[in-house]
Amino acid sequence: MRAVIITSPGGPEVLEIQNVETPQPVGDQVRVRVRAAGINRADLLQRAGGYAAPPGWPADIPGLEFAGEVDAVGPLARSSKPGQRVMGIVGGGSQAEYILVHEGLLVEIPENLDFIQAAGVPEVFMTAHDALFTQAGLQMGERVLIHAAGSGVGTAAIQLAHACGAIVFATSRTAEKLERAKSLGLDVGLSDQNFAAEVKRLTNGAGVHVVLDFVGAPYMAQNLEALTSWGRMVFLATMGGTQANVNLGLLMSKRIQIRGCTLRSRTLEEKLAVTRRFATHVIPLLAADKVKPIIEQVYAMDEAAEAHKAMGENKNFGKLIIRID
Amino acid sequence: MRAVIITSPGGPEVLEIQNVETPQPVGDQVRVRVRAAGINRADLLQRAGGYAAPPGWPADIPGLEFAGEVDAVGPLARSSKPGQRVMGIVGGGSQAEYILVHEGLLVEIPENLDFIQAAGVPEVFMTAHDALFTQAGLQMGERVLIHAAGSGVGTAAIQLAHACGAIVFATSRTAEKLERAKSLGLDVGLSDQNFAAEVKRLTNGAGVHVVLDFVGAPYMAQNLEALTSWGRMVFLATMGGTQANVNLGLLMSKRIQIRGCTLRSRTLEEKLAVTRRFATHVIPLLAADKVKPIIEQVYAMDEAAEAHKAMGENKNFGKLIIRID
Repeated sequence: MRAVIITSPGGPEVLEIQNVETPQPVGDQVRVRVRAAGINRADLLQRAGGYAAPPGWPADIPGLEFAGEVDAVGPLARSSKPGQRVMGIVGGGSQAEYILVHEGLLVEIPENLDFIQAAGVPEVFMTAHDALFTQAGLQMGERVLIHAAGSGVGTAAIQLAHACGAIVFATSRTAEKLERAKSLGLDVGLSDQNFAAEVKRLTNGAGVHVVLDFVGAPYMAQNLEALTSWGRMVFLATMGGTQANVNLGLLMSKRIQIRGCTLRSRTLEEKLAVTRRFATHVIPLLAADKVKPIIEQVYAMDEAAEAHKAMGENKNFGKLIIRID
Repeated sequence: MRAVIITSPGGPEVLEIQNVETPQPVGDQVRVRVRAAGINRADLLQRAGGYAAPPGWPADIPGLEFAGEVDAVGPLARSSKPGQRVMGIVGGGSQAEYILVHEGLLVEIPENLDFIQAAGVPEVFMTAHDALFTQAGLQMGERVLIHAAGSGVGTAAIQLAHACGAIVFATSRTAEKLERAKSLGLDVGLSDQNFAAEVKRLTNGAGVHVVLDFVGAPYMAQNLEALTSWGRMVFLATMGGTQANVNLGLLMSKRIQIRGCTLRSRTLEEKLAVTRRFATHVIPLLAADKVKPIIEQVYAMDEAAEAHKAMGENKNFGKLIIRID
């Protein structure tokens, strides 16, 4: 099969299309003929040598999500049939013609989504749903602050928060991205400068109940200031730095919770639970067009390096997708 | 002060306007000058002699909710100021010019609602929010079946379920009420005949995750049939009868929970918690016009008997309100 291969740690130029052995499903594995795969920032980290695939996943093929068709099933797989349209997350390896997936990690693609759209769903909607609802317990009527409004997870988080009846604040460095996010349900767009003071001003000093952050250290003090009592902060990335100064007095007096959270490093059991919650709570909204994947650009398989460059430049609003022909 | 008085158990004709002593606030009580009070089905039961006010509340003045202004505060009240526009639930007595309320049961009225609208909020939105979210744990993407779509609680429940991203099924005897409910977020309207089979047909046999019922015994078998595995059923009234035959085998095999639930008989501590959850999760949606009280008709104080007759005829879509001039 053809696959995108990280030939050595480095820049986008280390990506090559190579022929590798097609994997064979065993046990409860299902082989999926991938039709499209999303690009994630983690792919860039892995390509640069900084974020190795967890054990059991291809070490040199990037790709954390896929959409495609069931192609072959292992002898212990019980519910999958060849030809089913499925999507899901994996620990790596989805930017290839075929991938092996545990049957329980497959989610059937709603009829209203094609493979390109579906490939833009799993990482961002599972991550956003898990972070906002399972981790932060966001509820109707609460205020949530979402950083990086134009990122893939940002666009999904804004839509899900709006769909649950929350009031949505978001930041971006780019005013145009905030403007586009309004059509997704954003209530209040903020510059990434001085956002805590703006949040306090616009809420009569009360603040937000939940913060979803990707930046880390540089935003810590403002995030704590922006949160209300009993507020919850979830980190999905630390693009601005990991060594943060935390005011524990403020944490205590406001009864604030902070938690970090990635999907990739979780156990199979945890991923199965995340997948089932996503299927129950998000798929019906996707099927009813109440939330939707936001696709910025589609690349051919041999344009993977170009896709990595584009993501590195951070100009995208929503997802970059590789079509696997 | 003037008050609606239940002069003896009986029909609407036993209601009279009488002058009674104006109550004086003590401790942490607040006296509210009532401007409007909602009618509830419980008022009719109480008038007929079947649903006495709990201890500590006026025994002969009906009225479970109010909207008005803070008029005087007891010596231990800490946060209330005369002139504040407030609404809330009480154990009885709100259909009078003045009522005493524990300070913690007051909720400030959002600026976009007048007293008539606000008087249609507390019972139906607190009851619906408590039942759907606190009791039944309704979440985004789940399907909910709400009986009595045109009742006050029905119109609030449909709006809240829609606002949280649930898929809303509802029944009514009247096709016109179902049609009106569509503008509130109803997805699927059903006749009250044969609703379980319709639910199963429309969900490919899966059923709904939550049922909100007011009818009781006559609907029990169909409610159980309509629920999916791990389904939750909440009873707020049993207008069709209390002695229900329950198939415990079905309850077990589907892992179904049933719970009954009224607001009126709860302890003060429970009511304070319900009020705070309502303020946090529902007031922001009311203030943003995302959900709204549905008012069918407004009556003058001396038309209370007429209002009781109208509610008994069950033709209303939404709330009946008494204006307290």
